[in-house]
Amino acid sequence: MTTSLSPAFVRPSGRAPDQLRAVTLSRGYTRHAEGSVLVCFGDTRVLCTASVENRVPAFLRGKGEGWVTAEYGMLPRATHSRSDREAARGKQGGRTLEIQRLIGRSLRACVDRTALGERTITLDCDVLQADGGTRTAAITGAYVALVDAINWLTARGEFKSVKGGRDPIVGAVAAVSVGICGGVPVLDLDYAEDSGCDTDMNVVMNDGGGFIELQGTAEGHAFRDDELDAMLALARKGTAELLAAQQAALAGR
Amino acid sequence: MTTSLSPAFVRPSGRAPDQLRAVTLSRGYTRHAEGSVLVCFGDTRVLCTASVENRVPAFLRGKGEGWVTAEYGMLPRATHSRSDREAARGKQGGRTLEIQRLIGRSLRACVDRTALGERTITLDCDVLQADGGTRTAAITGAYVALVDAINWLTARGEFKSVKGGRDPIVGAVAAVSVGICGGVPVLDLDYAEDSGCDTDMNVVMNDGGGFIELQGTAEGHAFRDDELDAMLALARKGTAELLAAQQAALAGR
Amino acid sequence: MTTSLSPAFVRPSGRAPDQLRAVTLSRGYTRHAEGSVLVCFGDTRVLCTASVENRVPAFLRGKGEGWVTAEYGMLPRATHSRSDREAARGKQGGRTLEIQRLIGRSLRACVDRTALGERTITLDCDVLQADGGTRTAAITGAYVALVDAINWLTARGEFKSVKGGRDPIVGAVAAVSVGICGGVPVLDLDYAEDSGCDTDMNVVMNDGGGFIELQGTAEGHAFRDDELDAMLALARKGTAELLAAQQAALAGR
Amino acid sequence: MTTSLSPAFVRPSGRAPDQLRAVTLSRGYTRHAEGSVLVCFGDTRVLCTASVENRVPAFLRGKGEGWVTAEYGMLPRATHSRSDREAARGKQGGRTLEIQRLIGRSLRACVDRTALGERTITLDCDVLQADGGTRTAAITGAYVALVDAINWLTARGEFKSVKGGRDPIVGAVAAVSVGICGGVPVLDLDYAEDSGCDTDMNVVMNDGGGFIELQGTAEGHAFRDDELDAMLALARKGTAELLAAQQAALAGR
Amino acid sequence: MTTSLSPAFVRPSGRAPDQLRAVTLSRGYTRHAEGSVLVCFGDTRVLCTASVENRVPAFLRGKGEGWVTAEYGMLPRATHSRSDREAARGKQGGRTLEIQRLIGRSLRACVDRTALGERTITLDCDVLQADGGTRTAAITGAYVALVDAINWLTARGEFKSVKGGRDPIVGAVAAVSVGICGGVPVLDLDYAEDSGCDTDMNVVMNDGGGFIELQGTAEGHAFRDDELDAMLALARKGTAELLAAQQAALAGR
Amino acid sequence: MTTSLSPAFVRPSGRAPDQLRAVTLSRGYTRHAEGSVLVCFGDTRVLCTASVENRVPAFLRGKGEGWVTAEYGMLPRATHSRSDREAARGKQGGRTLEIQRLIGRSLRACVDRTALGERTITLDCDVLQADGGTRTAAITGAYVALVDAINWLTARGEFKSVKGGRDPIVGAVAAVSVGICGGVPVLDLDYAEDSGCDTDMNVVMNDGGGFIELQGTAEGHAFRDDELDAMLALARKGTAELLAAQQAALAGR
Repeated sequence: MTTSLSPAFVRPSGRAPDQLRAVTLSRGYTRHAEGSVLVCFGDTRVLCTASVENRVPAFLRGKGEGWVTAEYGMLPRATHSRSDREAARGKQGGRTLEIQRLIGRSLRACVDRTALGERTITLDCDVLQADGGTRTAAITGAYVALVDAINWLTARGEFKSVKGGRDPIVGAVAAVSVGICGGVPVLDLDYAEDSGCDTDMNVVMNDGGGFIELQGTAEGHAFRDDELDAMLALARKGTAELLAAQQAALAGR
Repeated sequence: MTTSLSPAFVRPSGRAPDQLRAVTLSRGYTRHAEGSVLVCFGDTRVLCTASVENRVPAFLRGKGEGWVTAEYGMLPRATHSRSDREAARGKQGGRTLEIQRLIGRSLRACVDRTALGERTITLDCDVLQADGGTRTAAITGAYVALVDAINWLTARGEFKSVKGGRDPIVGAVAAVSVGICGGVPVLDLDYAEDSGCDTDMNVVMNDGGGFIELQGTAEGHAFRDDELDAMLALARKGTAELLAAQQAALAGR
Repeated sequence: MTTSLSPAFVRPSGRAPDQLRAVTLSRGYTRHAEGSVLVCFGDTRVLCTASVENRVPAFLRGKGEGWVTAEYGMLPRATHSRSDREAARGKQGGRTLEIQRLIGRSLRACVDRTALGERTITLDCDVLQADGGTRTAAITGAYVALVDAINWLTARGEFKSVKGGRDPIVGAVAAVSVGICGGVPVLDLDYAEDSGCDTDMNVVMNDGGGFIELQGTAEGHAFRDDELDAMLALARKGTAELLAAQQAALAGR
Repeated sequence: MTTSLSPAFVRPSGRAPDQLRAVTLSRGYTRHAEGSVLVCFGDTRVLCTASVENRVPAFLRGKGEGWVTAEYGMLPRATHSRSDREAARGKQGGRTLEIQRLIGRSLRACVDRTALGERTITLDCDVLQADGGTRTAAITGAYVALVDAINWLTARGEFKSVKGGRDPIVGAVAAVSVGICGGVPVLDLDYAEDSGCDTDMNVVMNDGGGFIELQGTAEGHAFRDDELDAMLALARKGTAELLAAQQAALAGR
Repeated sequence: MTTSLSPAFVRPSGRAPDQLRAVTLSRGYTRHAEGSVLVCFGDTRVLCTASVENRVPAFLRGKGEGWVTAEYGMLPRATHSRSDREAARGKQGGRTLEIQRLIGRSLRACVDRTALGERTITLDCDVLQADGGTRTAAITGAYVALVDAINWLTARGEFKSVKGGRDPIVGAVAAVSVGICGGVPVLDLDYAEDSGCDTDMNVVMNDGGGFIELQGTAEGHAFRDDELDAMLALARKGTAELLAAQQAALAGR
Repeated sequence: MTTSLSPAFVRPSGRAPDQLRAVTLSRGYTRHAEGSVLVCFGDTRVLCTASVENRVPAFLRGKGEGWVTAEYGMLPRATHSRSDREAARGKQGGRTLEIQRLIGRSLRACVDRTALGERTITLDCDVLQADGGTRTAAITGAYVALVDAINWLTARGEFKSVKGGRDPIVGAVAAVSVGICGGVPVLDLDYAEDSGCDTDMNVVMNDGGGFIELQGTAEGHAFRDDELDAMLALARKGTAELLAAQQAALAGR
């Protein structure tokens, strides 16, 4: 690893460069949704609910497939200074649409939509408090809410006709941010790091070690191959820990 | 009181007709806002944040007065079945606008806007989980968030030049719903009661026993004077208990 | 009553505290609508049309019930200074939505929607000239337009299969504003009073003396029980006179 | 003239081919606007108000010129069947925008905007009842409202510094529709004719006999030179009568 | 002709008063659309595509008729200074809607919609570069794209059951602007002329010499009969040349 | 490289796996914009214009820095089947917003905004014809339009006070897509490949070999490290060729 590049850099939080923030995944956080998880990555808190509906979007009607989609929102005062309420402004901003498209694609990557059948699962990810990494926390938490919703369907016997076990879920996904801050590759950036770093990359991986999504942006200088490699190594470590946290939460530990 | 009208009616929750649900007011629920309160009326949970900004709307510029306003939202899966996200639909519905106007008016009734000076306090009331009475919970919680924001300003010496103590706050406000269910006047309706009752009234009162807002609607049959009197008596009892709960929360009890 | 509080108060219009403005209800004001009434409360003039359509909103389809709904608008120069045209701004304001929801609820309270059958009656209330009390004038006028539309349907034999007389109409509704101005409870506030009063309440009542809607707001100080009682007494007197005016208009007097 | 083309055609209204409908121009129809005229072309009734504001659009700021603009609306039940309220749909339709642009251009043609000074006059033309020809009625009525607003300004001494009489008004404009119905050129089409005619043309002329706007549309077959000539002759006759009616109204006859 | 009115006027382009700009009609300009034509009137360049869809708008369903409609857009930097992107502003302006309604009406005038059958042809006219006359160029180019789309349908045997040759096309349409500049009637105004002229008229004609649309506007002074006659004579000459250019393009010359 | 993975895969276009499509960059494509480039990647054609304005967004006012931003659009029939016009729908879709944010960030990475001074350069990228890779073509073409706009400013002496050569441009950026199709890593995917591939990655690089943006998405299966390495190698080769094509175009070759 390339932490030798800038041995003097100290993270604002005092964490080691390859250290995640404290992660919690609280299932059953609200009572109406089929899956409801409050995910915390340190001070970032996102409420992820999974809602099951017995219909599919127009483009899928009659095809025998289901759909998984996501919506993302931020409470106006989740952030340091109050931001406009998107419902009051009358439209969702580009950042919001970009994030909810990313969450939707990431979650669809772990679902067998034919096994799901003609139903839609909507993952609502609402940020109650933001401190960097809201989209990666959202993906990580939404996965647990999604599995809970599938389990709710399974418990009602909805997948009886389908052969085999935990059906429409074909893997697990988790996401984490990595970046280069003060020349040092770091894992799971908080807001203080995120706003000052040179490069920022969000990585979505599955439990087979494959990449689902990779979104890297050079904020300061363009990043080199060795920096990319260092960031990917951190992402691999971080998502492995997050995948373990998801399994622990689902196992009730 | 007229509870003798229908002695057979039993509240779905098992509560006495004049009994509030369990009420909690958790201050400092999120960390960025100048005031942040999670209010629970039973299973109804609303996050109320107060945000201070050093500007006023155009119609008040240069008049030496401040402004207090509110915005209301409901997370899509706060309810039994998922409702559309208003930001995605591109506009706030009539019910939302009506409620946020009510919250704003109610809170302005306890503020001396000249003492506040040229700043705006925005109360964001976001429903995390709904079980009836979200607007009354929101008003009751927003009052505590508002006082916390004023205290934050006071602690920074912003009202030094104003003579006297806890300045721009000139009273306390709390709100509760009352209704006629199965012929019985009841206090603080939950969703099961609200959707089946004949009459539903939201009452906002201050700590001087005065009415700030009264909004009664006959859902089934028109209500009579004696029913109105019975409901107002319950409202007086309920708001008195809520005003006490607010003071306890603010005193750190 | 509490008129002794401020015996010196004189209404800008010179009216007695319990005196309505001159009320006229002109039926057949325009020719296309099934019901069309110009209602005047003094200088407040609202055109109320009732339109019958043989369809119901999606949530009622196939349930054998009809729907009654309302829309409210104000011509840009109905007011002292020109206000923006809502169609040009691209959305209806909160006040507009609040008023049209109130009108719709009030009128539904006098209709048997099963007797109406699967049709929708839309009450369009457009303010040609405003001088306070537009929403109460609108409700009072819309009732007459609604009855005319029902009569039009009856004349075409649409309710033949339903047993009994003036079918889907199960009562009458009228509305009036009351308030406390300069300490005096007054009936039917005009703009000069409305903009300066301490408390303003809109009351919708039926011909059985029951309350349909009650919406009171303390603009200045919170109102007390005795003030509420005085206002309700005035409202009872005012709506009784308005209900008589409606019957006279419908009888062609 | 070519009325010999189809001698058998009888107008639904029984009017002669070159006969206007009954025209009335009622000044002072509402009381708040600086100019307020109800114009009737037969059963077509349009309320035209002129509102004076002491500001100009951004593109004119600081140029010493005024602005004259128009907005057009149709009450939902001005027509045979109810049309959607544009404010509720969230946008003005193409027809509405086209008509209000036409009204604005037509009225600007009779105003010296430098003499007007840095103020805006907005002409709101709202159709209370439609029976064809709403845009031509609107232009004809808006002219009278505009002159009343200018007179109101003159009476307040606003144009004292400008030399000469009725300053910013430099002419008069009126508009009428003409068309070919059943082969016969006719003047001032009502709805029954308008919806069935082959060609429809709206002509705006000034009191000098010049053309301000000409908008002809072949609905059925393309129109020939001789048909155009016949229509223009009718338009000349019709606008001359309308210009006389405007002068009579302004003279208080 | 009346060019003697102001013999001194010289067109900025050096053209004779009755001279069109260089006109080109490039078919097959893009590859996906059923018809795709780049039309140039001098420096004005508009891409016109015709898209065939097997559905009709709701108001035509089941009536056995087709529909022809148009949409118009201007790239933000088609003009001298950048104009806002309408998609970003969230609505199409009045000018855009007016132009696309004109294009649609003009093209429908040359189509037998019953012969077309239940399909919609949408003409998208997007201005890549503007130098005056974009709407007349759009109509002229859209006609060629429309014929190409009809030919594409014919080649697929879609009109086999209909008797006769080039079926749903019942004529040709072309459009040109004319105006009075410096007192001289001129043909096909470019931007330099358009922005300074006294009168501007857009004329749509068919190959039978009939008028489809006539839209004249007095920008400076009202125009007289003799000026109208001179402009119409120029329009007749111009559209004849454009109709010939269309036929040449369609013949592959 | 890993092309041995699936030796049997043949690209629909017949290209070698590491072969770009024919690339052209036509400068001065339209005449009004300060920079105007038509970029073609095979059948994908995007018109990129750079517009200079002497103002900056509110958040930069008075900071002495400039801004570079982008807007992206697709003509309705740029694609196989017609898509809705975003201006008519009233909002830009999530994909559009995502792409224009990417273009803006990429171009800002090669600009010294302090050297640019308080002006905004807007890059409008409008797709005339789409065949895959529109966003990478847009970035590649927009760079050339941006340099032309800077050169236009330089030629007017705008950067005289700044020391040194081709000032505000501090590097070059180009973009290309790479993917895994039928198991084979391929460069510059066209539509046929894009819609069927397993993984799709857009890579933006600078002329120093650094990464500006990396956006990879697993459409089918999650991609592994070796696949990522193979794709990045192709991206390096492709962007190098595109950077050379940009320099050739700017040199007038």
